[in-house]
Amino acid sequence: VTPNKPLLMEEIEVAPPQANEVRIKIVATGVCHTDLYHLFEGMHKDGFPTVLGHEGAGIIESVGPGVTEFQPGDKVIPLFIAQCGECRFCKNPKSNNCTEGWAALRPDVMSLEDTRFTCKGKKVYQFMGTSTFSEYTVMNQNAVAKIDPAAPLDRVCLLGCGISTGYGAAVNTAAVEPGSTCAVFGLGAVGLAAVMGCKNAGAKKIFAIDINPDKFEKAKVFGATDFVNPRDHDKPISQVLIELTNGGVDFSIECTGNVEVMRSALECCVQGWGVSVIVGWTNMNDFSAKPIQLIGGRTWKGSLFGGFKSKDGVPQLVKDYLVKKVKLDEFVTHKMNLDKVNDAIELMKHGKCIRTIVSVSPQ
Amino acid sequence: VTPNKPLLMEEIEVAPPQANEVRIKIVATGVCHTDLYHLFEGMHKDGFPTVLGHEGAGIIESVGPGVTEFQPGDKVIPLFIAQCGECRFCKNPKSNNCTEGWAALRPDVMSLEDTRFTCKGKKVYQFMGTSTFSEYTVMNQNAVAKIDPAAPLDRVCLLGCGISTGYGAAVNTAAVEPGSTCAVFGLGAVGLAAVMGCKNAGAKKIFAIDINPDKFEKAKVFGATDFVNPRDHDKPISQVLIELTNGGVDFSIECTGNVEVMRSALECCVQGWGVSVIVGWTNMNDFSAKPIQLIGGRTWKGSLFGGFKSKDGVPQLVKDYLVKKVKLDEFVTHKMNLDKVNDAIELMKHGKCIRTIVSVSPQ
Repeated sequence: VTPNKPLLMEEIEVAPPQANEVRIKIVATGVCHTDLYHLFEGMHKDGFPTVLGHEGAGIIESVGPGVTEFQPGDKVIPLFIAQCGECRFCKNPKSNNCTEGWAALRPDVMSLEDTRFTCKGKKVYQFMGTSTFSEYTVMNQNAVAKIDPAAPLDRVCLLGCGISTGYGAAVNTAAVEPGSTCAVFGLGAVGLAAVMGCKNAGAKKIFAIDINPDKFEKAKVFGATDFVNPRDHDKPISQVLIELTNGGVDFSIECTGNVEVMRSALECCVQGWGVSVIVGWTNMNDFSAKPIQLIGGRTWKGSLFGGFKSKDGVPQLVKDYLVKKVKLDEFVTHKMNLDKVNDAIELMKHGKCIRTIVSVSPQ
Repeated sequence: VTPNKPLLMEEIEVAPPQANEVRIKIVATGVCHTDLYHLFEGMHKDGFPTVLGHEGAGIIESVGPGVTEFQPGDKVIPLFIAQCGECRFCKNPKSNNCTEGWAALRPDVMSLEDTRFTCKGKKVYQFMGTSTFSEYTVMNQNAVAKIDPAAPLDRVCLLGCGISTGYGAAVNTAAVEPGSTCAVFGLGAVGLAAVMGCKNAGAKKIFAIDINPDKFEKAKVFGATDFVNPRDHDKPISQVLIELTNGGVDFSIECTGNVEVMRSALECCVQGWGVSVIVGWTNMNDFSAKPIQLIGGRTWKGSLFGGFKSKDGVPQLVKDYLVKKVKLDEFVTHKMNLDKVNDAIELMKHGKCIRTIVSVSPQ
């Protein structure tokens, strides 16, 4: 879709897989705020026309001649970050920033020049290299995770982005410690997954913070113990949290993409060892703070896809879901078919859903 | 001194030590940029009149009735951060932010209400709790380090602030790794000490960055391998370093107190695992960056007194100097007596010294 001139889905063609590529029949896909961001906020003229969607799951339909890892029928999750296994980022245990794929080359545009989608002979981009709002997509095998055949694709698709991102921000990037006090800002799917990560990492107290108090009940399901609506207070939210925690939280996770919230999330951390993690995405504004915030012993980090190396991490998260260590069902508030995807986008735009599962093809 | 109305040194009285206090005869003191900052930049009306100086060394002259740890004649270094050993910050290995002392209570004013200095019956503040531009100072024993009797006080006084701060920022806060590539911004004493820290931690390549190329020769003495003057380049310095290092440095340490340099120091770090440490002090401006800088895998930290727990760290650093693991002599560019302390401040203000050693009393 382009923002103003949607292409007809029926007119888009998907090429067969080449060399090391696989063609995936998408079964289900979530809708994530990054789809909205590209469409409405970060809109880059060179990023269109494109097929959105990057939180999908499907089944291998066919494979290119160089593919040995996949066979038709395999259940898979397309990955918007590759894991080539060869680059210096893949080889370093500290990083999941593989140099293969769109993210390293055209991050502003959020897609590569190279695409397997066309419409009447003209290129249509693959958003984040995935384009899961489509019956089929073609991807390099470096960016596809083979998952447990027992996995229900209309649930584990959520591990393609939001849930892994929030959960990993807590367990990997912040490395939340047992007995600690945490604060999560923003209770969309990413924030709720961060709450779940804090809980699974053994946090003693988890403050869930949102200006929409309707989200608090859901946050409780994922393990939040305390709930704060900044609009209920005259003081800055960081000050409120510092007072509620006798000096600040050990870990804070920002899941809104608002730079003022990023600042609050840093400032509510305890001096000496507080760690704040930026997860929410924006490229439109700078985040900022006073130097004393860091000099006083706080650490500011960021998290991309929860710090998971994608091909290693996602299959493990699928297993964690199957043994009930990771919740997914509880994120799903709406279901619809692909022809209603614009309705799903509207729901998210107005904050009326946690996650909508869009059915693309029968499982 | 007050900025405009200096008090006469002879008119200031120093009370005898009470309870857990010691009175120290200062032998020598360095002059540090934080003295200038208080006087000329961060000037807070409630912080005057005060006796400046916080990088001193001396000898215990007398002790209060509750003091068991010190005896007259002990060589000591006054500490602007205490280490009470009892608070939650002292008990946590991650932090050196002891809650005792001026820093926790009146950080803007940089001194406590409580002082042992008077002038004609009126309070004169103890700057940073130390006030080493004085023949005598009185301090709580929690903020005094007993050091090796073999230590030359006109050298180890530098461990009271600048050298510990820069060195520790590299070895403790950044935790520079063997074989890594580092960049140090600003080659005053703190920056040079950071270079020494990178070197001692085993860094393979150390970029020394300053707009004054006269500093490069000195930086070489401390272990710098590469030298960059931002004014020699049209591109932003972060871009220059990214190109020189095939993607960015592993660790960067900012020692200027300029928020634009803080941004450059973050941006020159490699994505995925780069760590940038803010050491330079300012409370006048915000530092800022784009969220992608952190989301891409960089970490932003800050360092206060190099992360050293003060009473534990300083005696060890003195020993490290005595066995030539840590250099101090090489920082000293000027020497003068206390009555010339205003000349020493002028030298620093105009960037004409690395460190001036001010002799206060015979050793």
